[in-house]
Amino acid sequence: MKILILGADGYLGWSMATSLSYEGHKLILVDNYSKRKHMKNLKRFPLCKMALLPKRLEELMKINNKISFYKMDCTNFLKMKKLFSKYKPDAVIHFAELPSAPFSMLNNQSGWETLQNNLQSTFNLIHCAKDIHPDCHIIKLGTMGEYGTPNIDIEEGWLNIKHKNRQDKFLYPRQGASLYHMSKIMDTDLIWFYVRNYGLKVTDLMQGPVYGIYQDHNKKNDDLAPIFTYDDIFGTVLNRFIVQAVAGIPLTVYGSGSQVRGYINVVDTIKCIKLTLKNIPKKGELAIYNQFTEQFSVNELAKLVITSLKKISINATINKIKNPRIEKEKHYYNAKHSNIKKIGLKPLKLSSEIIIDIAKYVLKHKKNINHSIIKPKVTW
Amino acid sequence: MKILILGADGYLGWSMATSLSYEGHKLILVDNYSKRKHMKNLKRFPLCKMALLPKRLEELMKINNKISFYKMDCTNFLKMKKLFSKYKPDAVIHFAELPSAPFSMLNNQSGWETLQNNLQSTFNLIHCAKDIHPDCHIIKLGTMGEYGTPNIDIEEGWLNIKHKNRQDKFLYPRQGASLYHMSKIMDTDLIWFYVRNYGLKVTDLMQGPVYGIYQDHNKKNDDLAPIFTYDDIFGTVLNRFIVQAVAGIPLTVYGSGSQVRGYINVVDTIKCIKLTLKNIPKKGELAIYNQFTEQFSVNELAKLVITSLKKISINATINKIKNPRIEKEKHYYNAKHSNIKKIGLKPLKLSSEIIIDIAKYVLKHKKNINHSIIKPKVTW
Repeated sequence: MKILILGADGYLGWSMATSLSYEGHKLILVDNYSKRKHMKNLKRFPLCKMALLPKRLEELMKINNKISFYKMDCTNFLKMKKLFSKYKPDAVIHFAELPSAPFSMLNNQSGWETLQNNLQSTFNLIHCAKDIHPDCHIIKLGTMGEYGTPNIDIEEGWLNIKHKNRQDKFLYPRQGASLYHMSKIMDTDLIWFYVRNYGLKVTDLMQGPVYGIYQDHNKKNDDLAPIFTYDDIFGTVLNRFIVQAVAGIPLTVYGSGSQVRGYINVVDTIKCIKLTLKNIPKKGELAIYNQFTEQFSVNELAKLVITSLKKISINATINKIKNPRIEKEKHYYNAKHSNIKKIGLKPLKLSSEIIIDIAKYVLKHKKNINHSIIKPKVTW
Repeated sequence: MKILILGADGYLGWSMATSLSYEGHKLILVDNYSKRKHMKNLKRFPLCKMALLPKRLEELMKINNKISFYKMDCTNFLKMKKLFSKYKPDAVIHFAELPSAPFSMLNNQSGWETLQNNLQSTFNLIHCAKDIHPDCHIIKLGTMGEYGTPNIDIEEGWLNIKHKNRQDKFLYPRQGASLYHMSKIMDTDLIWFYVRNYGLKVTDLMQGPVYGIYQDHNKKNDDLAPIFTYDDIFGTVLNRFIVQAVAGIPLTVYGSGSQVRGYINVVDTIKCIKLTLKNIPKKGELAIYNQFTEQFSVNELAKLVITSLKKISINATINKIKNPRIEKEKHYYNAKHSNIKKIGLKPLKLSSEIIIDIAKYVLKHKKNINHSIIKPKVTW
């Protein structure tokens, strides 16, 4: 297959490229390093330094020499059109979005940049598919955060609504908790507009918060690991808890800690995307998967980290702080996630072993942990 | 009151400014003439030439000298902030959006410009309210087109959904038929995000296609009339039918003509907005009104124009053409519109007299009608 990966420098993008490079596909990688740029500007650094893509690709190309890289901004339509016309990819995996809720809530500029970057990159991609190669399969990362925390069960993307003795099927009504989440809702609406009107083929993966570190052939070469963030703006909760435990800092729980979400191991994320690559939607179909494997409250995660790491003599504690975000802390949460199992995922359950495994990676780089970038500084 | 009108040069913006100038309010008018610019670039011209705002304001200021005008782009946050800080308006009426479905579907550039302009102007406005003056009442023009043509009754903005023995209230699920309509859906989502999180006060008016010409004190001075468009890109259906009839061209019905929508006379639009100015939502409330007065199919409108204008010896015919748009032609349509009546609107019913009245205005300017800009040239 010819697979175009947009946002290939990111946590998921690089994991995906690494994994797919083993399968002999022609890979076209695209990134403009905007996340690196924003992290640098905000003085948030990942756990390990990462070389730029051309350098990292030298290693990957020993496995697969059919990899090209373009340093390119996906919001540039002319460049996207040129790339699309050149390769006519069988599949596009779209990670080229600003992924941070706190970044989007920093100020007007970062809020608009998140809305604009995410919406325009998606708009250009879908427009290219329509104009140049409607048969290509677009796989788009959405987020479980699009649904928010409704008081009814969360279905997978769609909801049949009966109202006054009539009925119709709609995109599930969504309500995000940050501008980042709003941008992803808009993406989905925009994609569905193009899919239904022009017969495109799109898979939208509503992913829960991800944890872990994807390392494969390069297991012993940490220089080739994907970006691992643990800071207040770009980090995700479980990885951050593990870093705090390793660093000997109390795990900061925002608010009561009773917020429930669906989580997924990055290893499963990669498996899911590979499964969807093989399960191509029909023309005019928007296939939506809720991409997570287990529901936890933040308190449950914190406790699991503490009990797990005790086994390797790391004694961590919890520090409950005022929630920096506007979000419901006590809420109903029951989200369906069976579509991805139907196409073959055997979920990895979060366990002490997995937490210890991540902690071992963090321990190796313990000296890099910057204590000052963990406590939340963006509030809304 | 201090009232800020964004998009004051437009069909509704100028009508609003004209009408409010009689009531002694301090009016701050803003426009960047972007619609004029786009119309000129696309060689679509209104029925009558219009002087720029400062010239037109000379006349209006004989009635009310508390009117200021700023030639300004609402997508410029710094300028918006400055204006907001200077005036701290009691109410803002937001018309500063690109209003055309065909324009948004012309190509990638105009599509993105519609999404970007509409979303960013709304984003800046709501951000200014939050940061500078959360007590101000924002009145935003939405469109009935946000709902699309669902197979269930269209409620006013919100829907109580029962699902598996639980329930919650959501924004009514919406599905637009053009990028323009999608931009308005995104606007509403964005506004609701800010309203629920920051306790703002917003009224969103889901307006149906408008017809007529708002002339008040300047009834005898057509130089002060608002813009009247009848072309394929910026015109609305009933005004266009009347122009076609006056010009002796068959009325072009798109497709079967059985598409049903809710329509409103521009005179009622102005009345509705004035009523909502007096009905301020509570903090954290997004008040949604479906702003139309009667449902018609396109065929019904065409027939009404023909029978009405026969009375003044204009004999018009119908020409059904292939629908240039992707839209359902046979569909269920039953939209609630009682909120606006509850706050006092006595709707103007569309009648032969009203159609003849519009036709008389068009007849006076018949020589300006450009036959070549009526037939639809943008398809999707």
